[in-house]
Amino acid sequence: MNGADVILQTLARSGVDVVFTNPGTSEMQLVAALDDVTQMRPVLGLFEGVCTGAADGYSRVTGKTASTLLHLGPGLANGLANVHNAKKAGSSVVNIIGDHATYHLHLDAPLTSDIAAVAAPMSHHVESLQTPDDIASGAAAAFTAASAHGGQVSTLIVPADLAWSQATIESVTAQSGVQTQADGDLASAVEALRASPKKTMLYLGKEAQRDDVIALAGQIQAVTGCRIAAPTFNACLPRGQGRAVLEGTPYFAELAVEFFAGVETIVLIGAKAPVAFFAYPDKPSVLSPDGCELIALAKPGEACLVITEALAQEVGAKAAKVKTPNAQDIAAPHGDIKPDTFAAALARHIPDGAIIADEAISFSMNLPGMTEGSKAHRWMGCTGGAIGQGLSVAIGAAIGAPGAKVIAPTGDGSAMYTIQALWTMAREALDVVVIIINNQAYNILQYEMYRTGANAISPRAQTMLGLDNPQLDFCSMAKGMGVPGHRVTTAQDLDEALARAMAQAGPVLIEAMV
Amino acid sequence: MNGADVILQTLARSGVDVVFTNPGTSEMQLVAALDDVTQMRPVLGLFEGVCTGAADGYSRVTGKTASTLLHLGPGLANGLANVHNAKKAGSSVVNIIGDHATYHLHLDAPLTSDIAAVAAPMSHHVESLQTPDDIASGAAAAFTAASAHGGQVSTLIVPADLAWSQATIESVTAQSGVQTQADGDLASAVEALRASPKKTMLYLGKEAQRDDVIALAGQIQAVTGCRIAAPTFNACLPRGQGRAVLEGTPYFAELAVEFFAGVETIVLIGAKAPVAFFAYPDKPSVLSPDGCELIALAKPGEACLVITEALAQEVGAKAAKVKTPNAQDIAAPHGDIKPDTFAAALARHIPDGAIIADEAISFSMNLPGMTEGSKAHRWMGCTGGAIGQGLSVAIGAAIGAPGAKVIAPTGDGSAMYTIQALWTMAREALDVVVIIINNQAYNILQYEMYRTGANAISPRAQTMLGLDNPQLDFCSMAKGMGVPGHRVTTAQDLDEALARAMAQAGPVLIEAMV
Repeated sequence: MNGADVILQTLARSGVDVVFTNPGTSEMQLVAALDDVTQMRPVLGLFEGVCTGAADGYSRVTGKTASTLLHLGPGLANGLANVHNAKKAGSSVVNIIGDHATYHLHLDAPLTSDIAAVAAPMSHHVESLQTPDDIASGAAAAFTAASAHGGQVSTLIVPADLAWSQATIESVTAQSGVQTQADGDLASAVEALRASPKKTMLYLGKEAQRDDVIALAGQIQAVTGCRIAAPTFNACLPRGQGRAVLEGTPYFAELAVEFFAGVETIVLIGAKAPVAFFAYPDKPSVLSPDGCELIALAKPGEACLVITEALAQEVGAKAAKVKTPNAQDIAAPHGDIKPDTFAAALARHIPDGAIIADEAISFSMNLPGMTEGSKAHRWMGCTGGAIGQGLSVAIGAAIGAPGAKVIAPTGDGSAMYTIQALWTMAREALDVVVIIINNQAYNILQYEMYRTGANAISPRAQTMLGLDNPQLDFCSMAKGMGVPGHRVTTAQDLDEALARAMAQAGPVLIEAMV
Repeated sequence: MNGADVILQTLARSGVDVVFTNPGTSEMQLVAALDDVTQMRPVLGLFEGVCTGAADGYSRVTGKTASTLLHLGPGLANGLANVHNAKKAGSSVVNIIGDHATYHLHLDAPLTSDIAAVAAPMSHHVESLQTPDDIASGAAAAFTAASAHGGQVSTLIVPADLAWSQATIESVTAQSGVQTQADGDLASAVEALRASPKKTMLYLGKEAQRDDVIALAGQIQAVTGCRIAAPTFNACLPRGQGRAVLEGTPYFAELAVEFFAGVETIVLIGAKAPVAFFAYPDKPSVLSPDGCELIALAKPGEACLVITEALAQEVGAKAAKVKTPNAQDIAAPHGDIKPDTFAAALARHIPDGAIIADEAISFSMNLPGMTEGSKAHRWMGCTGGAIGQGLSVAIGAAIGAPGAKVIAPTGDGSAMYTIQALWTMAREALDVVVIIINNQAYNILQYEMYRTGANAISPRAQTMLGLDNPQLDFCSMAKGMGVPGHRVTTAQDLDEALARAMAQAGPVLIEAMV
């Protein structure tokens, strides 16, 4: 047994059952080790951002630790934007990165780079194996760190000679990382809910976005009349029929300020204090009103159930009936494809248990409201704001939740960052419905150009925001990667295409011209 | 005038005339500044790796400093693999990266990351603007660093509030960076050439890969009988008719060891000592023979002309006639498309002044020999070994050398990393002939699996190296991005498709099924 076998066996024994790979020469032993470590499903991506995004999506829907296998510093770099999103999502990921042999590094061959330095900004934990004695313990430490605090990003750097040498120590089963039980300011939260419930908001972050904690929040709302809400972009938010409705924080800071207006207390349950996505001249960066009290009941990454139960108990909500949305009878949309008709079409066809990987950006504004009463589903947002994750996260979701329909509404600009994801969807026959909003522009930036006060008006600058020359043809690109595509130009056609897509299995792309 | 105007004006006044952009909200003022800074040509890419690769290619063919404009840490991360290649190429690039407003950073909004840390591993110089007083001097310092030592990578981090605030200092013209004149061990080099010329090799790196220095090397060879050679992958190597032939170092270490066998002295002229690309069990990492003397006449980044002239003078070669390759009459190839028939077809059709962006990987083995007598051309290799650069580097070459035909032979696996490059080729109507070698595999890794001794034989591991399920259809992908594509399956068809492609302008893709 060589070092590569020990690494994969250690991860597999610890519960890692998937590896999203784009390997190179330095990782050949790790690829070969897949022959024996059959508990781990290897999934090939043609670009590393597909692999890291898929690992993120897998962890979000399963709660388990996913892994990737990438080639040296540049391979990791290609995956880093989606590692950023995974880190901000609180996903649990071990990125396994091959390195040159220990004795080869000092020669500064062309592919040499400081992998630990590349990894550090987007990792909670970086583990560089140095000697054969480190291999099992290092792999275990990477797993333990990744599984701590509800989910973290570990990078495990494996020099080629350690992978191919005979192991001195057998594989081990790693300890799962510790998650702290939240122990925040319960008394102040109770006090706020009693004193001024309608001006109090429970703000639920990732570790609180699970059915049991959301139900408790719904009970507290039912009894006290408080508001319950979530950040703009969430890792994997349970929504729809049968679940309490968490209000969503608007993306635009000026709307977010209205959203929080009148709130005197925000009780943070596994969430950070709400802040604007970007700074803008003369607009606030902090979204909560002046003087609003922020009470940290549970910090991000802490377990939230017990303390939320205590909060419900204190305010006498444990037996309350949660208000859940009614099933809505949304009429089939007609006319042009616009944010409202798009949202209506999607809301009508979300099947029970679906997972939405949302990167529709400027076209997503009507989605939360319109889908509130759709069948029970989970919603995955762009947690780190690094666009180019939607299609990749969808891959991980489809692999992590077989039987669930995954729906990936994506802007044309966003889709192009990791368009290679389509090939992996075809290869693995994943049950994903990709919806491309083809508006031939970085439409959000056309808003942002004015919101930032930059106000470029000449064609010269404006063309940097346009995708119309030449027009992208996603059906052809999808065909090139083995995914059937259909172009629709009216809301009615979109609605019908969605109905057909939901009735069949396997990947399909719907290109909505808007 | 705001900070963004000052930055772009400073770079433009210093000689930067192109910016490859994929901006976001934080960069809107820099985009708007393009309205006024008309000396700078903005070129949009749909993925940041396209932008950084294009900047690399532009610098390689022009010798000038190129720039990129990218969005925050994740945008830079997406471009980082090709920044790595640019750094290893000795290209001169300023990457302009927007950041959150200085007062917004501490809030840790979703897109926050440590941009300087992301940049550091792939940059020679990182400049983080902190105050309005820094803007002009910081932009100038970034340019100066990028233009030093023959070409370096600078990262210039621009917080949004400095971009949108009124500037306190006007734009400046930056000093060009200093390049040291080589001052190596001339006496030992002369001694080696006199004592044992046939066992001496002149080894020319990037700063020596220019017509005048190559001609001097050719004269020295003509007089002394020494060998003259270059590394495996070069930034922009002049070759073909009228130029002395530099032998190329083989990629595979075992072949490289044969290549250097019998060499007693290597005179390094702007090159590093030759080392293996990767380490392999029981194969050498250092390629020069045991006991071979390495003489550093010029270090990488140093100016090589004067000292090479001195060397030629000392060995009495200044009046010698350089041996240049004869024009070869290569017959039109027939049969299957294989490395030899592919190389023959390409060699026949290279037009005068062409630029080859080579990422054909396992299919490139016959190219150097077969194209030795082709019309004068320049050859750009994957200097940092991070595949996914060929199509992007071709963009920069086509923009930097209008009138030159750019030819980009690329593996299917390689092409997929930055396939978005096709769209920019169409948008800018660039004169690029893309040749995709579609062998439905990471073919080089099928070799490397055995060379590393990993020897996976089961389908499970082997499928991680296969691109055949589903088969990629590059003509459809090209159509989706506005580039006409033609599929060929025989060497004769390839030859004819190349003849047609060379006779017309604008981008075209030839998909060679092998």
